[in-house]
Amino acid sequence: MSAEARFKGVIAPMLTPFDSDGNPDLKRFCEHAAWLISEGCTGLAPFGTTGEANSLGLDERMSLLDGLVNAGIDAERLLPGTGCCSIPDSVRLTQHAVQSGCGGVLMLPPFYYKAPIASDEGLYRYFADVIERVGDARLKIYLYHIPPMAQVGFSLDLIGRLIDAYPETVVGLKDSSGDWQNTKAIIDRFSGFTVFAGSEVFLLDTLRAGGAGCITATGNVNAREIRRVYDNWQSSEADELQTAITATRMAIQAFPVIPMMKALLALTRSDSAWRNVRPPFLTMDDSAARTLRDELAEAHGMNLELA
Amino acid sequence: MSAEARFKGVIAPMLTPFDSDGNPDLKRFCEHAAWLISEGCTGLAPFGTTGEANSLGLDERMSLLDGLVNAGIDAERLLPGTGCCSIPDSVRLTQHAVQSGCGGVLMLPPFYYKAPIASDEGLYRYFADVIERVGDARLKIYLYHIPPMAQVGFSLDLIGRLIDAYPETVVGLKDSSGDWQNTKAIIDRFSGFTVFAGSEVFLLDTLRAGGAGCITATGNVNAREIRRVYDNWQSSEADELQTAITATRMAIQAFPVIPMMKALLALTRSDSAWRNVRPPFLTMDDSAARTLRDELAEAHGMNLELA
Repeated sequence: MSAEARFKGVIAPMLTPFDSDGNPDLKRFCEHAAWLISEGCTGLAPFGTTGEANSLGLDERMSLLDGLVNAGIDAERLLPGTGCCSIPDSVRLTQHAVQSGCGGVLMLPPFYYKAPIASDEGLYRYFADVIERVGDARLKIYLYHIPPMAQVGFSLDLIGRLIDAYPETVVGLKDSSGDWQNTKAIIDRFSGFTVFAGSEVFLLDTLRAGGAGCITATGNVNAREIRRVYDNWQSSEADELQTAITATRMAIQAFPVIPMMKALLALTRSDSAWRNVRPPFLTMDDSAARTLRDELAEAHGMNLELA
Repeated sequence: MSAEARFKGVIAPMLTPFDSDGNPDLKRFCEHAAWLISEGCTGLAPFGTTGEANSLGLDERMSLLDGLVNAGIDAERLLPGTGCCSIPDSVRLTQHAVQSGCGGVLMLPPFYYKAPIASDEGLYRYFADVIERVGDARLKIYLYHIPPMAQVGFSLDLIGRLIDAYPETVVGLKDSSGDWQNTKAIIDRFSGFTVFAGSEVFLLDTLRAGGAGCITATGNVNAREIRRVYDNWQSSEADELQTAITATRMAIQAFPVIPMMKALLALTRSDSAWRNVRPPFLTMDDSAARTLRDELAEAHGMNLELA
């Protein structure tokens, strides 16, 4: 993927549907991928936090990715999560993604380890080792900075060191810190680096600062409206559009976001299997989902029906 | 394993040696296991935090366990770590351990997820699901409570609920919280539950309170002296012996414990490969290891030479 073709815009970290036995449901997964693209997603990031990636086995992740590609989803638009705690597991998933033609991978740091073990030097060596073992010039890594969950994060110095060492490979970052000053600092410091906000709440700010867009959980249910902000960020209505998607986001994240989005899809599509999550997630109460669905439909015009 | 045969005493969470290519070194691993037993370990817990378990691939973990059993290490003495973030991975490792005849497994909670996702209810369902999918009456689970690393922990209520639901399966816990009051509260509340301190610093207190012993990183280098406390805990010299092993522990944990223990073994056995760690761990500076080795040899009589 050339620098010009790098990811930008609105990327949904895809939800992972499970059947009644708790197994990943490839049919619904592919349907959801196609629907998200029809709703305006410029890319899809399967196996992020929203996709319950760390609740999936390695084989399940690879099999689901194969399924997406076989279903005709353009692999160049796919940015699967491949960062595990161990180098061999991360290498295996990353190699598979590259060989599948994915446009990039989104990599968590080895999140079991906390400071002082997870030092900048240790994390640098971890990523250097993964990159060298994958050994493929097609590899494009987007760093996944999510301290609220991983605890371990990417400092500005570490990001800089990785870019300097692997300028053709370490090409971007998703900032799920929730700290806009951090996102802005990364954009400001690393020219040509592709920075995504981890929430659409920061989409307009990110674009105005020179960032690439957002990779956002709620892209699973509100991609169309988020895309409108992306398409119109230089227009006079940009702030108003941003206010609307921020309001929708806030309404959803008043609940556990992943179970709630699954419950919303289940309701709207009359497909109760969509509610299934893997423990430690808990399924969302149906009545809460009904109330929110009605609120979102009335106030925000949200429509989750399959085309 | 009958209730009488449950683990107790001094268990070393085995270090994992790596060769110069970064691959697990089965020969040194088996040698180390045999040496630890000869030094007085009553059990071995491969693939704990000290064993860099989360830096190993699933296949590597299973292959190393097979190697130990094939090398003649009594599987009943083995308490491998099998807790991953995902149910399928945890089930796979746990089934393999049970089928290998291991006396038990030490299970981390799904550590990627933090509160409120990792609620008591969610964690309960996670463990219930693993237990039911493994579906083997031989399974004996020791819960691995290590909030400094996993963040996610086991509350007293959660422990009680798991014991009530699976009294023949959820039989013990390792408390690496470093909080003696927590260890004591668990021992006091759950009669017949097998509780290990996560550090020998609390060994005598644990035994006096009715606990089973300790599963301790520094058991990799000081098992003989720790065992003396276990064997003599009711004698008049117990406090003095405890003071000595506490002093040794403190001297070691003034450094990064895992790289330092590996460096000590490398020095003592003139085997530099023992120094290897996987990133994000960093190898220990040789001169620091020399200084500590001399200090430990003089002040604490430590001898790490292979028999």
